[in-house]
Amino acid sequence: MQDEECVNGDGDDLDALLTDLAKVNNSRERASKLFQWLINPIPAKSFFRETWEKKPILVQRNNPDYYKGLFSTAEFDRILRQEDVQYGVNLDVTSYNNGKRETHNPAGRALPFTVWDFYGNGCSLRMLNPQAFSSTVWNVLSIFQEEFGSMAGANVYLTPPGTQGFAPHYDDIEAFVVQLEGKKHWRVYNPRTEDEVLPVLSSTNFDQTNIGKPILEVVLEPGDLLYFPRGFIHQGDCLPDAHSLHITISSYQKNSWGDLLQKVVPAALEIAMEEDVEFRQGLPLDYLTYMGVQNSDKDDPRRKKFFSRIECLMKKLATYSPVDAAVDQKARSFLHDCLPPMLTPEELSSSVQGASARWERGQVMDVGAQITTQTRVRVLRAGCARLCSDGEAVNLYYITENSRVYHKEELKSFEIKAEHTDAIEFLIHSYPKFVTVGSFPCESAEDKIALAELLFERGIIHTAERL
Amino acid sequence: MQDEECVNGDGDDLDALLTDLAKVNNSRERASKLFQWLINPIPAKSFFRETWEKKPILVQRNNPDYYKGLFSTAEFDRILRQEDVQYGVNLDVTSYNNGKRETHNPAGRALPFTVWDFYGNGCSLRMLNPQAFSSTVWNVLSIFQEEFGSMAGANVYLTPPGTQGFAPHYDDIEAFVVQLEGKKHWRVYNPRTEDEVLPVLSSTNFDQTNIGKPILEVVLEPGDLLYFPRGFIHQGDCLPDAHSLHITISSYQKNSWGDLLQKVVPAALEIAMEEDVEFRQGLPLDYLTYMGVQNSDKDDPRRKKFFSRIECLMKKLATYSPVDAAVDQKARSFLHDCLPPMLTPEELSSSVQGASARWERGQVMDVGAQITTQTRVRVLRAGCARLCSDGEAVNLYYITENSRVYHKEELKSFEIKAEHTDAIEFLIHSYPKFVTVGSFPCESAEDKIALAELLFERGIIHTAERL
Amino acid sequence: MQDEECVNGDGDDLDALLTDLAKVNNSRERASKLFQWLINPIPAKSFFRETWEKKPILVQRNNPDYYKGLFSTAEFDRILRQEDVQYGVNLDVTSYNNGKRETHNPAGRALPFTVWDFYGNGCSLRMLNPQAFSSTVWNVLSIFQEEFGSMAGANVYLTPPGTQGFAPHYDDIEAFVVQLEGKKHWRVYNPRTEDEVLPVLSSTNFDQTNIGKPILEVVLEPGDLLYFPRGFIHQGDCLPDAHSLHITISSYQKNSWGDLLQKVVPAALEIAMEEDVEFRQGLPLDYLTYMGVQNSDKDDPRRKKFFSRIECLMKKLATYSPVDAAVDQKARSFLHDCLPPMLTPEELSSSVQGASARWERGQVMDVGAQITTQTRVRVLRAGCARLCSDGEAVNLYYITENSRVYHKEELKSFEIKAEHTDAIEFLIHSYPKFVTVGSFPCESAEDKIALAELLFERGIIHTAERL
Amino acid sequence: MQDEECVNGDGDDLDALLTDLAKVNNSRERASKLFQWLINPIPAKSFFRETWEKKPILVQRNNPDYYKGLFSTAEFDRILRQEDVQYGVNLDVTSYNNGKRETHNPAGRALPFTVWDFYGNGCSLRMLNPQAFSSTVWNVLSIFQEEFGSMAGANVYLTPPGTQGFAPHYDDIEAFVVQLEGKKHWRVYNPRTEDEVLPVLSSTNFDQTNIGKPILEVVLEPGDLLYFPRGFIHQGDCLPDAHSLHITISSYQKNSWGDLLQKVVPAALEIAMEEDVEFRQGLPLDYLTYMGVQNSDKDDPRRKKFFSRIECLMKKLATYSPVDAAVDQKARSFLHDCLPPMLTPEELSSSVQGASARWERGQVMDVGAQITTQTRVRVLRAGCARLCSDGEAVNLYYITENSRVYHKEELKSFEIKAEHTDAIEFLIHSYPKFVTVGSFPCESAEDKIALAELLFERGIIHTAERL
Repeated sequence: MQDEECVNGDGDDLDALLTDLAKVNNSRERASKLFQWLINPIPAKSFFRETWEKKPILVQRNNPDYYKGLFSTAEFDRILRQEDVQYGVNLDVTSYNNGKRETHNPAGRALPFTVWDFYGNGCSLRMLNPQAFSSTVWNVLSIFQEEFGSMAGANVYLTPPGTQGFAPHYDDIEAFVVQLEGKKHWRVYNPRTEDEVLPVLSSTNFDQTNIGKPILEVVLEPGDLLYFPRGFIHQGDCLPDAHSLHITISSYQKNSWGDLLQKVVPAALEIAMEEDVEFRQGLPLDYLTYMGVQNSDKDDPRRKKFFSRIECLMKKLATYSPVDAAVDQKARSFLHDCLPPMLTPEELSSSVQGASARWERGQVMDVGAQITTQTRVRVLRAGCARLCSDGEAVNLYYITENSRVYHKEELKSFEIKAEHTDAIEFLIHSYPKFVTVGSFPCESAEDKIALAELLFERGIIHTAERL
Repeated sequence: MQDEECVNGDGDDLDALLTDLAKVNNSRERASKLFQWLINPIPAKSFFRETWEKKPILVQRNNPDYYKGLFSTAEFDRILRQEDVQYGVNLDVTSYNNGKRETHNPAGRALPFTVWDFYGNGCSLRMLNPQAFSSTVWNVLSIFQEEFGSMAGANVYLTPPGTQGFAPHYDDIEAFVVQLEGKKHWRVYNPRTEDEVLPVLSSTNFDQTNIGKPILEVVLEPGDLLYFPRGFIHQGDCLPDAHSLHITISSYQKNSWGDLLQKVVPAALEIAMEEDVEFRQGLPLDYLTYMGVQNSDKDDPRRKKFFSRIECLMKKLATYSPVDAAVDQKARSFLHDCLPPMLTPEELSSSVQGASARWERGQVMDVGAQITTQTRVRVLRAGCARLCSDGEAVNLYYITENSRVYHKEELKSFEIKAEHTDAIEFLIHSYPKFVTVGSFPCESAEDKIALAELLFERGIIHTAERL
Repeated sequence: MQDEECVNGDGDDLDALLTDLAKVNNSRERASKLFQWLINPIPAKSFFRETWEKKPILVQRNNPDYYKGLFSTAEFDRILRQEDVQYGVNLDVTSYNNGKRETHNPAGRALPFTVWDFYGNGCSLRMLNPQAFSSTVWNVLSIFQEEFGSMAGANVYLTPPGTQGFAPHYDDIEAFVVQLEGKKHWRVYNPRTEDEVLPVLSSTNFDQTNIGKPILEVVLEPGDLLYFPRGFIHQGDCLPDAHSLHITISSYQKNSWGDLLQKVVPAALEIAMEEDVEFRQGLPLDYLTYMGVQNSDKDDPRRKKFFSRIECLMKKLATYSPVDAAVDQKARSFLHDCLPPMLTPEELSSSVQGASARWERGQVMDVGAQITTQTRVRVLRAGCARLCSDGEAVNLYYITENSRVYHKEELKSFEIKAEHTDAIEFLIHSYPKFVTVGSFPCESAEDKIALAELLFERGIIHTAERL
Repeated sequence: MQDEECVNGDGDDLDALLTDLAKVNNSRERASKLFQWLINPIPAKSFFRETWEKKPILVQRNNPDYYKGLFSTAEFDRILRQEDVQYGVNLDVTSYNNGKRETHNPAGRALPFTVWDFYGNGCSLRMLNPQAFSSTVWNVLSIFQEEFGSMAGANVYLTPPGTQGFAPHYDDIEAFVVQLEGKKHWRVYNPRTEDEVLPVLSSTNFDQTNIGKPILEVVLEPGDLLYFPRGFIHQGDCLPDAHSLHITISSYQKNSWGDLLQKVVPAALEIAMEEDVEFRQGLPLDYLTYMGVQNSDKDDPRRKKFFSRIECLMKKLATYSPVDAAVDQKARSFLHDCLPPMLTPEELSSSVQGASARWERGQVMDVGAQITTQTRVRVLRAGCARLCSDGEAVNLYYITENSRVYHKEELKSFEIKAEHTDAIEFLIHSYPKFVTVGSFPCESAEDKIALAELLFERGIIHTAERL
């Protein structure tokens, strides 16, 4: 198999799948199909109903090539050689011996000479954002983010035989552990308490004695998948005779109802104070004399009255919740987290990124190509742009100018004039259908074309035919 | 009368009252009495039931000396001469002519030569924090803050005959306008809309045409009082033949139920997320496709379900409200806003501020004076110190080292060890009674004395007898 | 004597002298006379020729009342009682035992109760800026700053019997130790090396073994003076039977030729680069291959040539020195450091600070008083304002709005229009003579009066007669 | 010709030259040869003696292929297509019409579609750092920086027929204008005044009427070179029938004697103040009364004396100049500005960047390769590392981890222990000879190897044979 890998390069199976998926007309459908491939043979529907956020699940396939092409040690080596991988930023060198977890990152660029020396000496390697270096990982994650409606991330772990790189711990994300090469022995444990079910933050490193007995113990082989929800403690170590390479795909960090309420609640209170005089009425003159921790043991009837007033106002608060506006705040964070879409050759040639204007033989060619009212367009991806209201203004936020490096770019947006919001909504809701620029609900043809040009230049729409 | 003023200096009537009040054993009782004096003959109880935060009220006394001693133009002149009054910080020079409101502050110190020149040319003068310069105003406001449980502030306004210094507007505070000298013609108007009843913020300057007809119109004379709640529009101008000096005493800025909820609600959500897994569960995978402003016109059953889930969680939130802890946050803001207490000679000689250690004839005297278990002590004022919990720790916050200048000092506090919290609560709840240090619920006599010394050195307690 | 002190209050002798000095017409002459009083019977001229910056000198007077009225422990106690003295900011509590120097400042305000307790336990007290609390010290220092042309500062030291508050060390200022009460045993040592003669920075605390033998050892008694230049190591300790109170008056911190050159030299280089192409010519292509520390041992003829080129350019630099502009930069720092002048009653009533406009019997009085061309004026002090050029503009800097607290206020200035610079110079150079406003070399009478009013309102000039 | 270009791709001539140059053993020699190629047929020696920093010079070659391979419009187009070119950061869109210079940069990434549209509408394009995108430009500039001992930069300009992109102006750098495609009409003018000869800063845009008559007017054709020193005004415009592509190579920005003196002079003054008491002596007591702009018209003998004292001290200053340390400061700035060296395949395989450790068939290979005392090494380039003293410490600064993007990385360095400085100097001065690690002047073999490994891992040295 490994001989073959060296011959075939970057793996055909996933490549073939991705090429097929590129033909799927609707990006959301494409995302569902790719996710189904990830968890096969478990049907996605039952996975989300019975397993997701609830319990670990294991898929053993006896098919070492199933995930082939996603990532490999050869790709790892290529990246070190060709890309600017920085210790501590893109790569961590770690070890876990005798219950002690250590990080060994030097400063500066991680070159193969030193990285493989660490590895040879028994250190584990964690590549922190393989999507910045591997096009395949970028492509896969940018598709998954449409499935999750939440950022999809990944880490790659390479562990030498007979070692363990990390202490037992739990994370704050849903984790899909995809075994790529070699073998790894995994143990998964229940959350320790009710409060650590679906936790908000990752744990510290645990001592082996504090985590009870594993509820799942397995040796993963290439092609196998292990999923566990946030809060489940886990640890993986290599057998004496085999190294391990796996990629962990993650999502749903800070994507809970409570996270949304953090946007809803202060906004609701602001509205309530504007609209409801009960929220603006003064506190009782003497409340400081019977309320507060200092008075909490007092048996004062005024305390009961005070509590019930607070309770009443808080219940009333629910009626002022600006839910859609709060969802927009959450959506903006997500859009900022998103990877830019990876375009197919067809998309490239029908969008600004590959539009045909070019320099040739001493002069520019094809600059004349123009958008007209007959031009048929659609947004590049179902979720690549979103109309959100910010106070008075309405802005269009979009991900097509995001960077493959997390938050390297500011979130991009521009204001949409009132007379154009209908056209934008029309366009977004028409997806995956192409619509003619002429069908935009705008006043004039000039208006329609100007709007289309604007969206085209930002990479938000592409055309049905090459311009 | 004015001749008399020059003879008598700073006014006897209020001085006599304050001297009497200093003998009142309980600072809260003292505050009630002083407030009753302010609004006489209206009983405080009925005032707070029927008028406070509801409507303006006018008290005409035909007794020009009623408020005498509180402040005077002679005092205004003395302050300019002796104190470092800065334009823009402590004094505003304003005018309102032909519907145009202007400020004329130069830079630097306000000296009588230039201030009175402005006044002579028809400008109004507003002194912004007379309590920093006038001991009487300081004393009065420091007593009022105990009545209100909210910062008591004041501005002094001196207006030349035949002029108006300010445009019609409303404020964000409860206002007591006390006429001190001369006369002023006042007009008060209802809030313009429901949303401007008890408003959160002060208004901009209004145009005369936008405010309707006054509900109250009167000429205030010395000894008269005009009260109006926040949100009531008002304007005052001088008759052609008389200047006016008045002081406006204010309170209840940002002291509403909503202001308290701003502390309660985020803390409640934090607790709910820690304790209740429903708040930590993930949002629906596809919620971004039907929620948000972009989808707000959609008639999608999932929207209804989403709204009702939010509502249910928000109602549940009420059960996690840490009301007492939130009140403590609010109390801390109030303590930071507080004026330090102005001590009577007796208080001075029985507290650290006047404690008798001193230098005399080449050596220090009376340093030996010591707190013993027999020493009887109490807190200086009912509300001069407060025990609040900050996460794990318990701190004692106190106002005795505050400055007469607003927020010039950080709020002072120190941590109270667990074994001392009972003693502090005992001491605070014993007020106005003096208790012996020996009666503190602490383990050892050393402990009791150490705690008493600590509180004594910060000026929080004083002794029944001089040390 | 001390009995007497308690009777007489703040001391008559210095008060009488200061009253006499207030009649001296020229502030520079006044400064000389006060300085002569300080060092009597040594003539100032020979002091500055033979002693200043050269060696310590001792004046023993056998007249304990000589400096009486400058400061006292009674004043120290009054300040603690009445003023907001903060530990660490205005007062240090120190000790020096067994070669170990410690500071014992608690946080917050220094009240007599705790301060005298520290003192009673053997701690030394250092008041850091007595001029902010004592009018006499303020007056004296504000006069001395005119003598020195450099900030005059002071610290007060109160030391209990039998103790030492500080380790041996040297300072970066010229020091005049004025013994006020009790006795102190002093030892002064030569600078340890040539490099520590007139040092730029104060030393750390020395070990007793590192400083050699004292060149001067004496017990100071009230009325005695000890002067030593910066760099001379010194230590003082109390005899077992007497406390000590002394004030150290200091000056000439960062006031050397080198400090001025720090302003001259970069400015000279900037001018040279603008005006002289030799400074703009490129460095040799290969200079990095033979210059630099890495090549400093090379015996390369190009090095010699390079050195001699640098030397030649540096010598040429002298011809571009903007000395007067650099002095102005230095002067601005000095003006910012200056204490504001303390006005005599006559000065007060003839300047804006005491100008007679005032409020009386319901109306402002004397506002009509006006500056006319006949009004005779002069600057308040020889050095209270200074005309400096800042690039294109010319500004008048002045100290009359400085604070008694070091750098509490920004340095005040305003721009002088080109047509007014002659008038300002005329006014400054006319001092101590009064000149009529009409004699200002300005175009019009309006101009003259406007300028005079401006200067009067900033407190820079006063009038020969009350306005 | 252009047909040919399309066939030959990126140009063979320069590629062949660079391949040859890669075989030159000494990087300084390589730099001289490449510079000689640039200015052929003018001998470098006479160029630097007669032309450099003195006057413009023109080389017309009638050989359109002379500079072929350096850059092309095809490369420009490729870069837009494949690299993240940002408007305003990497590319400026400009125009100059009717005397008005404008910039038309939109926000965000510059894609061919919009860039060529601007160009088609008559705008000029300036690529600001082609070295970040073009390996050839990177290689050429990284060689030139060794010739100049100063940063070598470049801009590329593409101008449509019949237009001008920039107003007449002068720059602050020595400029080599290399015509690559099309034609451009150039006019060069003398500096307007003596003060603008070799100026420190670039000029603003000039009006055509203010710059006199050109001293040189020419139409550049491909293969031609135009050099002019900083301060010479220039403007270029396209003939109606031909576009123009040129690259301007620049150097010697802020590399004058005066720039070095800015490091020398403050350091000299600091040393003088430490070592020479004359610099620490106090200024005259009364200097502020006769010095300063306010007194500059006074005819006071003390002024003369003061001036001569300053002059004397400034001359003395020269003797304290730490020239080598100042050169090191300058060198550090240069090293930070430097491009990293572009390695040949041989250099790559003998340095850490290409060292052979790698992953293959499930395990790391060649990690065992080790530096021994027999290993022969040298620094990668004559100037790729430099030993500088920073106060007490000695640090080795190096450019091998610099970025191709200006100042994207901090300047890299590490401290060299005292016992290793000789070895580092030995190594640097031995270049271009390889020396065995065993010959390092260090104490022990372990020491020698540890030092060599350290330098190898930072990319500073490479080995004579592959490890």
